[in-house]
Amino acid sequence: MPTKAEVSANLAELGLTLPEPPRPGGAYEAVRVVGHMAYVAIQFPVEGGRARWTGRLGREVTTEDGVLAARLCALNVLAQLDRAVGFERVAGIAHIQGMMQTVDGWGDWAKVLDGASKLMLHALGEGVGKHSRSLMGVERLPMDVPVALVATAGIA
Amino acid sequence: MPTKAEVSANLAELGLTLPEPPRPGGAYEAVRVVGHMAYVAIQFPVEGGRARWTGRLGREVTTEDGVLAARLCALNVLAQLDRAVGFERVAGIAHIQGMMQTVDGWGDWAKVLDGASKLMLHALGEGVGKHSRSLMGVERLPMDVPVALVATAGIA
Amino acid sequence: MPTKAEVSANLAELGLTLPEPPRPGGAYEAVRVVGHMAYVAIQFPVEGGRARWTGRLGREVTTEDGVLAARLCALNVLAQLDRAVGFERVAGIAHIQGMMQTVDGWGDWAKVLDGASKLMLHALGEGVGKHSRSLMGVERLPMDVPVALVATAGIA
Repeated sequence: MPTKAEVSANLAELGLTLPEPPRPGGAYEAVRVVGHMAYVAIQFPVEGGRARWTGRLGREVTTEDGVLAARLCALNVLAQLDRAVGFERVAGIAHIQGMMQTVDGWGDWAKVLDGASKLMLHALGEGVGKHSRSLMGVERLPMDVPVALVATAGIA
Repeated sequence: MPTKAEVSANLAELGLTLPEPPRPGGAYEAVRVVGHMAYVAIQFPVEGGRARWTGRLGREVTTEDGVLAARLCALNVLAQLDRAVGFERVAGIAHIQGMMQTVDGWGDWAKVLDGASKLMLHALGEGVGKHSRSLMGVERLPMDVPVALVATAGIA
Repeated sequence: MPTKAEVSANLAELGLTLPEPPRPGGAYEAVRVVGHMAYVAIQFPVEGGRARWTGRLGREVTTEDGVLAARLCALNVLAQLDRAVGFERVAGIAHIQGMMQTVDGWGDWAKVLDGASKLMLHALGEGVGKHSRSLMGVERLPMDVPVALVATAGIA
């Protein structure tokens, strides 16, 4: 299990720092730990309380920005895990689910979600950061964001 | 862990009673317990076998009715947990996932899903009922219902 | 827990064999085991690397073909579990989530997803194969497939 210093150093290599974790916008917890699993609430590509990208992948949002948006979602997942349980208790990311607003004919699904997957791997290391994943093209997301992420993690 | 009498009393404060849990409409279980987790099958805003609301949030269905629909989904989750495992074994709701049929420009996502979240908290108490959550605007739900709910819970 | 020989014999009764499990198309694992749970990445109705059906249920894809597509997704889930953990360690399927591309007015949700559920039950036996499930009509899936499946399983 990585230390916070290690995760921060790994993120710094990418020019990133752990953000302030977004506060839940309703009657729920940002992270719920049950047994040895942490269930992280849906995270959006928000920074300082506002959506950094809005619109649909393949129209208002390029694949390149989609990669950054997915990475920001993953960064917010990490920030939530840090605050709620601490990286030293994170035994392994289990699964991430990516929801995307897309347009017909756009096909860079894997490339965009790799923005999140690769951040997990780089920040936490291969052994802890690896995960399975799923993805789907939803009709609509809150705040009109192009991508959102739901994650679960094993806790020691 | 709450007793059934406690949950019933909490629901009665809201003028609600535990419904008969809806029967699965296919080759699956309403609740599957694996290890210390209960996986509840998707629940719809159905009552007595029929959908109480149909259509899309922001068009045929108001936000106010959406709140009630989400609450009815959560009530059905509770009814399933009661029948399958009993409230006295429910250690904690883990995560709820809300799927919603919406229209462009409608934005009361959190308010509607709070209909489910607040019911969980009120019925089971803060310690057991709290959970993380996710939500998305899907294109279409079975029976044309405006909202559906998937829940997981930790089991003692 | 079933042996591989038992699962293969059960599949043979349906004229099916375990396929080569599809390789992940990105920076993720096909199966991630955390604690006593296996999280299987999203599986598509692909065979030999290509989608066997494309389009929307109720338009390009009949309900009958949708049943076969859901069954092929489930077969790929089994192939992934076999390779990653082995059937003898699969204590029970927990939950399957079906995502479907549909058209307005189409209503054979349960029939199509039963294609996956019944395969699980037949291949693994009732005790291990039973599961809860959820489903939704998504706007769009990768490769324009009509159905995709996400599964979790308990591991001994």
